[in-house]
Amino acid sequence: MSDASDRLTRALSLLERLEPGAPERVQGNLNAFHQDAAELVLGYAFADIVGRDGIDLKTREMLTVAMLAAMGTAQGQLEFHMRAAMNTGVSREEIVEIVLQASVYAGVPASMNAITAAKKAFEAVEKSGP
Amino acid sequence: MSDASDRLTRALSLLERLEPGAPERVQGNLNAFHQDAAELVLGYAFADIVGRDGIDLKTREMLTVAMLAAMGTAQGQLEFHMRAAMNTGVSREEIVEIVLQASVYAGVPASMNAITAAKKAFEAVEKSGP
Amino acid sequence: MSDASDRLTRALSLLERLEPGAPERVQGNLNAFHQDAAELVLGYAFADIVGRDGIDLKTREMLTVAMLAAMGTAQGQLEFHMRAAMNTGVSREEIVEIVLQASVYAGVPASMNAITAAKKAFEAVEKSGP
Amino acid sequence: MSDASDRLTRALSLLERLEPGAPERVQGNLNAFHQDAAELVLGYAFADIVGRDGIDLKTREMLTVAMLAAMGTAQGQLEFHMRAAMNTGVSREEIVEIVLQASVYAGVPASMNAITAAKKAFEAVEKSGP
Amino acid sequence: MSDASDRLTRALSLLERLEPGAPERVQGNLNAFHQDAAELVLGYAFADIVGRDGIDLKTREMLTVAMLAAMGTAQGQLEFHMRAAMNTGVSREEIVEIVLQASVYAGVPASMNAITAAKKAFEAVEKSGP
Amino acid sequence: MSDASDRLTRALSLLERLEPGAPERVQGNLNAFHQDAAELVLGYAFADIVGRDGIDLKTREMLTVAMLAAMGTAQGQLEFHMRAAMNTGVSREEIVEIVLQASVYAGVPASMNAITAAKKAFEAVEKSGP
Repeated sequence: MSDASDRLTRALSLLERLEPGAPERVQGNLNAFHQDAAELVLGYAFADIVGRDGIDLKTREMLTVAMLAAMGTAQGQLEFHMRAAMNTGVSREEIVEIVLQASVYAGVPASMNAITAAKKAFEAVEKSGP
Repeated sequence: MSDASDRLTRALSLLERLEPGAPERVQGNLNAFHQDAAELVLGYAFADIVGRDGIDLKTREMLTVAMLAAMGTAQGQLEFHMRAAMNTGVSREEIVEIVLQASVYAGVPASMNAITAAKKAFEAVEKSGP
Repeated sequence: MSDASDRLTRALSLLERLEPGAPERVQGNLNAFHQDAAELVLGYAFADIVGRDGIDLKTREMLTVAMLAAMGTAQGQLEFHMRAAMNTGVSREEIVEIVLQASVYAGVPASMNAITAAKKAFEAVEKSGP
Repeated sequence: MSDASDRLTRALSLLERLEPGAPERVQGNLNAFHQDAAELVLGYAFADIVGRDGIDLKTREMLTVAMLAAMGTAQGQLEFHMRAAMNTGVSREEIVEIVLQASVYAGVPASMNAITAAKKAFEAVEKSGP
Repeated sequence: MSDASDRLTRALSLLERLEPGAPERVQGNLNAFHQDAAELVLGYAFADIVGRDGIDLKTREMLTVAMLAAMGTAQGQLEFHMRAAMNTGVSREEIVEIVLQASVYAGVPASMNAITAAKKAFEAVEKSGP
Repeated sequence: MSDASDRLTRALSLLERLEPGAPERVQGNLNAFHQDAAELVLGYAFADIVGRDGIDLKTREMLTVAMLAAMGTAQGQLEFHMRAAMNTGVSREEIVEIVLQASVYAGVPASMNAITAAKKAFEAVEKSGP
């Protein structure tokens, strides 16, 4: 197995923990753009960085939600990572707190956008629940 | 005690936990700007939001560092909250991981700026150490 | 009446001036997210800050439109505050000028997005007109 | 011919090179907002700046795509300038490379949003192709 | 007089109202960069847009301060426009209110940075006072 | 040679082309932060992405300057990449044009900050010249 495909395999394995079924969808989306995109982008994000030790995956997803809510430029990915956060053990209450905290550091509009994302993520997780 | 002064008292008490001695400096800075600024801004940030239950203070500071590193517009406050993170139990290793994670979600330049802030924060905490 | 509910009452009263009927909708939206969200977020935004003396409400709404147009991350809220601006006495001509000024300080794409928001806001105010 | 109308004429002529048919649509959109908007905004963007010598139009469109992808606040205009880039000689492969490069400087979410825009732009150019 | 030099003349005349002595400094700075920079950039900013009727100069400077405080990426220019605001009739109290309002729409760190800028602007205007 | 060290070697080799002597300084800076930082961050930026075929290095540096100027949050890195652009064949005139183009897409303040960076980069390259 080449190292590039190994990096991709590790990235997809972490992505599966974030949301079961996501690897197929995300990899398909990236492959339709360019054959190297999945390996490069997912490889860096998930195999190189998010998969590192030092912070557990649950806390990492809280940090990702915090960053995306503060930046305010990737609403779809904020929703995805709110679902991923819940899939890795973050409670709804914790997501509420992150969203409220975003109002302090990024302003009320960033927080309101994150509330919209959270409502959709809460609903999606409910539907897919046991 | 009026409610406004109670809110400020709770905010300053939390700020003292973030960095011993900070309340005097920050309150002085804000009072020199406007008499209501400390109560309003610190009151909202620390008494209303960051002081809430639901997420412990250590994790909240990790989230704040994540938000400020991702936004990239408040280098001084990023340094402050990296020191505050260490003062509330965040390890250097965890700060390193947050900074590396910022390169994924906000880009390499945001991460490089956060490395500069982290180095200063590490040095400051070392100097003030026991 | 507790102080928290008093703060919320004052916030909702200002929100009613920004757009008649908005308090019910916005409060409902926030309550569905978390029971404290309306009091905290609206309380800070409208009772603590925007409701202050020192700048009249019409000018405050012009400033809010300017900030949201420049940031470019909250299109829905930009539309809302353009309607609110008109509801508090800002003319269409003044909104046009703010939008053009945004092209200088935040760039042409920010201004183009604000034009899209303004057209929707102009239409909405027309429909709800006397 | 007055100077203002001359500036607008030159701007619309460049816009026609970016996307055949765009001048009517964009000018109509801006005129419906304010009679001066097309001359001011398009005049500055295209006659004053983008129409300057010193960098050829193909490279300028690559730069515009880079800026819009990095900022992440104008998805519709990013799509437009990806189509315009292709209309002025930028290859799909070059757009792919700009989008991947955006992941380094602005983060993976900015790059993912640009991938979404690129797919739409690729499809639109295909449909309108010979 | 050519139209370009007329546009520059009108821009510099407005700039002189914003801060006496600024035209020489700013034009010198831009000319040292490129011979067309002053005419293009100042011409667009001040002659084409900020010099328009429809909003008085005092209110326009309040809007500029609001935009720059919200964006948080141009601290030096925020200071300049706070001084310019005071030079065109904006009171210190009004600047305080804009800065506090920025905490709602752009977050507390943006507001804290604006407080730093305001303190410098207040001091500078005091020194140059009658 | 392990793959990680190979990736780092390729990244440092590209960095040497951007600015002779930079690899030692940048690697030292990153190593002082964390032993993996140089390999991860430089490896992704320069070996994985910027070192790819499809766009030549000169054009890539123009794109990087465009992105950093538009984002406005990494002034030091903007200066570095302006020097790197000149080291890879970008002319001063082309940098001037990118900076002026940034005023259209990111606003005049972003452009003014880029002018400040360009002046320093021009001076630095002059000093180190033959």
